[in-house]
Amino acid sequence: MHTIHAYGATAATKPLSPMTLERRDLGPRDVLIEIKFCGICHSDIHTARNEWGSAVYPIVPGHEIAGIVAKVGSGVTRHAVGDRVGVGCLVDSCRECANCRKGEEQHCLKGFTGTYGSVGQDGKPTQGGYSTHIVVTEDFVLKIPEGIPLDAAAPLLCAGITTYAPLRHWGAGPGKKVAIVGLGGLGHMGVKLAHAMGAEVTVLSQSLSKKEDGLRLGADHYHATKDPETFKKLAGTFDLIVNTVSAKIDVNAYLSLLALDGVLVNVGAPAEPLAVNVFSLIMTRRSFAGSLIGGIRQTQEMLDFCAQHRIGSDIEVIPASKINEAYERVLASDVRYRFVVDTATLK
Amino acid sequence: MHTIHAYGATAATKPLSPMTLERRDLGPRDVLIEIKFCGICHSDIHTARNEWGSAVYPIVPGHEIAGIVAKVGSGVTRHAVGDRVGVGCLVDSCRECANCRKGEEQHCLKGFTGTYGSVGQDGKPTQGGYSTHIVVTEDFVLKIPEGIPLDAAAPLLCAGITTYAPLRHWGAGPGKKVAIVGLGGLGHMGVKLAHAMGAEVTVLSQSLSKKEDGLRLGADHYHATKDPETFKKLAGTFDLIVNTVSAKIDVNAYLSLLALDGVLVNVGAPAEPLAVNVFSLIMTRRSFAGSLIGGIRQTQEMLDFCAQHRIGSDIEVIPASKINEAYERVLASDVRYRFVVDTATLK
Repeated sequence: MHTIHAYGATAATKPLSPMTLERRDLGPRDVLIEIKFCGICHSDIHTARNEWGSAVYPIVPGHEIAGIVAKVGSGVTRHAVGDRVGVGCLVDSCRECANCRKGEEQHCLKGFTGTYGSVGQDGKPTQGGYSTHIVVTEDFVLKIPEGIPLDAAAPLLCAGITTYAPLRHWGAGPGKKVAIVGLGGLGHMGVKLAHAMGAEVTVLSQSLSKKEDGLRLGADHYHATKDPETFKKLAGTFDLIVNTVSAKIDVNAYLSLLALDGVLVNVGAPAEPLAVNVFSLIMTRRSFAGSLIGGIRQTQEMLDFCAQHRIGSDIEVIPASKINEAYERVLASDVRYRFVVDTATLK
Repeated sequence: MHTIHAYGATAATKPLSPMTLERRDLGPRDVLIEIKFCGICHSDIHTARNEWGSAVYPIVPGHEIAGIVAKVGSGVTRHAVGDRVGVGCLVDSCRECANCRKGEEQHCLKGFTGTYGSVGQDGKPTQGGYSTHIVVTEDFVLKIPEGIPLDAAAPLLCAGITTYAPLRHWGAGPGKKVAIVGLGGLGHMGVKLAHAMGAEVTVLSQSLSKKEDGLRLGADHYHATKDPETFKKLAGTFDLIVNTVSAKIDVNAYLSLLALDGVLVNVGAPAEPLAVNVFSLIMTRRSFAGSLIGGIRQTQEMLDFCAQHRIGSDIEVIPASKINEAYERVLASDVRYRFVVDTATLK
């Protein structure tokens, strides 16, 4: 057992605070990672505040982890001490079901083991990356290639793969018109990735306040969705729309922006159902779909793609003591575009 | 001008009755078809009764037309007098837009010309197949291969292509589990076609009353949707669900039956929007999609496929004088599985 430093929540209504937690002893296939940086994802806030109703306290959030291998189990072959590595939303899965066998561990039919808030191999609650060390079975540890700084790499493990997966699955690339709805932590990665894939990229954001940023990140066009003209002007335009906004939207208005065979993909889920006019789907064979992070193989592919295209997240590095403040700023959309905790400040 | 016999509606609230109408003189690319049989589609009823709000009276419904070429224009190259031919829901389109160029004339960006209720090349309202003759530009006339009787072929032009198109588009075939929701005019074609494509076919019908029929038509399994156990038992099963029921359904219950990357396709649109739980989509990357008939090229492919597999519609042939009665029986789901008007009874 390793006792380590962490920062977590002891109750839904209390601010996060410093704590210690124990990591399991290394099994033969385990990797001990010295965490260097951990991104702050909106899911962390939902969990810390028990907004999804399943939190068990104390809980240490964080599933955008970047660090260095500190020790490996006797049977580990994929990683070595000193390697630059990352851990995303998954730390294990059954590996035997049809979906795991396809490399889609995020859709494990027995339920994947989340990086925090699940039950780990030792039978104890898993605890996330706002901590100095983590022990993960080697198959769920990703390699972070040289060329991406560890701090800018951390958010790729969730925000990156969440947008990369639907862009790849629905064929973003040259000749394709892709819209990214929302320019936040997810959206800014969607713009960078879709642009690097060669698609013609449009940002659909509530206002034009981040237009300059959007174009700098790689967007070809930028439109305000609060302007009704946007929906008239862009009707029937896009092959793919990736909606990164979890708030309730007028889904039929966005469906109307799709060309023949176009797909609107939500990567977040609003709490309430969305009223879909089926006529919107039938006309020009549109689809409304959802996508959830990505499997381990695809997450590695994404990291390699990012290294090749020199893509990292745009980040603001903070000490652990600023996590509570950062949560408020995330909720106010006051971050460009991802907070990353420097875990050296935990010690 | 040819004055011909027909059967149509003079007002939304009156029964259909015998009438005459005029067909345009043959242009160089036109084909005069002597109609032998015309299927009765639910859309005919919606239109005759102005339930979609755009009917102009008098109107002659019918877009499941099978007949024989009686005369061709001077420039016609694709069809000859005596050919067995069919006409479906489209008689023209712009042929120049991106979708027409892809062979998806049903999604013509300028709007296709419907077989009835549109405006034809002569500037007059188009009138459908409850009539003895029709004039159609040759590119929108399909060949009905030998091996399908004309009466059983007629419903293929709408019910056939409406189910064939999504089955093909979303890859129904060996190793795929396909469910057809509803065993009516569309559903029974969906079962026959999916079976012929090599898929494992399940019928999801309200009750088990047509189970024997469903299995005879080619289904491997048959389940009652009014039994809540059905949704538990079949959770996560299907690669593709084609929903032929236009009534409002619990779309999330059907989405839960989809496996990873599964697609629920509606081929009819309920009047009210459907409340989609986005979480249903995100979990296992499901899609909710729509599909509208098919283009001319694919409609021909469907007819050839049906001939190869000896597939026709299961029909009840009626004289024109029984059309009003047949409408009531369609609304009561009292037909196995398509009424076809014998147009010889119009004269």
